[in-house]
Amino acid sequence: MPRIKIISVGKTKERWLQDALQEYLKRLKPTLEMEFQWSQSDAGLLSLAAKEKHIICLDPEGKMMDSVTFSSYFQEQLEKSGARLTFLIGGAEGIPQEIKKAHPLISLSRMTFTHQMTRLILVEQIYRATEILKGSGYHK
Amino acid sequence: MPRIKIISVGKTKERWLQDALQEYLKRLKPTLEMEFQWSQSDAGLLSLAAKEKHIICLDPEGKMMDSVTFSSYFQEQLEKSGARLTFLIGGAEGIPQEIKKAHPLISLSRMTFTHQMTRLILVEQIYRATEILKGSGYHK
Repeated sequence: MPRIKIISVGKTKERWLQDALQEYLKRLKPTLEMEFQWSQSDAGLLSLAAKEKHIICLDPEGKMMDSVTFSSYFQEQLEKSGARLTFLIGGAEGIPQEIKKAHPLISLSRMTFTHQMTRLILVEQIYRATEILKGSGYHK
Repeated sequence: MPRIKIISVGKTKERWLQDALQEYLKRLKPTLEMEFQWSQSDAGLLSLAAKEKHIICLDPEGKMMDSVTFSSYFQEQLEKSGARLTFLIGGAEGIPQEIKKAHPLISLSRMTFTHQMTRLILVEQIYRATEILKGSGYHK
C-alpha cells in the first residue's frame, strides 16, 4: 500500500482541523497510508527532510495544476518513488532554500493559506486524486 | 459596518466545517458582518442572486490573485458596493452562465475544492484581507 507522509512546521491545535483530517484519513484508509510529522522549526524541517527520499515541496513559486493534472502527477510521483512519497509544508518563513533547490515544487494557489489549512487542502486533493484515478463520482 | 454575504449551493452538514467557520466569524465580528445563504439548486441560486446588487462569482475561469492583491480588490469592491458585497459559490454544475456573464469572476485556485471547503477558504481569505488592511501580523 502506498505510504504518504506530510511534514509541516507546528502541530495542529485546532479541534476542527483534526476532525476534518480524520474524516479524509478514514476515507483514504483502504487506498493509502498517511502519516503526519511535525517540526518545531525550519532547522527541524531540514533534518526531517534529510531522512526522506522522495520529496515534493509546497511552495508559492511551485507549479500550479488543476485537480485532474494533479492526480496524474501524483500517480507518476508515486510510481517514481516506489510508493513512498513525502510532501513538505513550510512554516511562516517557507521551506528552506536548500531543500527547495533539490526537489520539485508545487503550489495549491497563489493565495497564502495558514499551513494548517494547507495541510487539509492537500489531504483533500490527495483523496480527490485517488478518486479521480479510480474514476469515481467524487470529482463530479 | 460592512456586510458580506456568501451564497452557496447545499447546506453544510459537517460539524468540523461549522466549527471552523465559527472560529473565523468570531474573529471577524468586530470588523464586518457575515451572512450565509444556501440554495438547493442552480435555479435557487439564480433567484437568490437576483436580489443582490454587488456580486462576485467564485469560478474556475476567474481571476487568480495572491492574498495581498485580494485584500486591495476586496477593499475596492467594498467601496464600490457601499459595503454590501455578495460572494457566490456554485454547486457541482458551477454558477449558471447568465450570472457569470453579469459579474466579476475570481478563482481561489486552479484546483477543484469541495464547495464547503471553498467557503472556508474564502472566509479565511476575507479575514486575512481585513488583517492585511489593518497591517496586523496575521499575514506574517
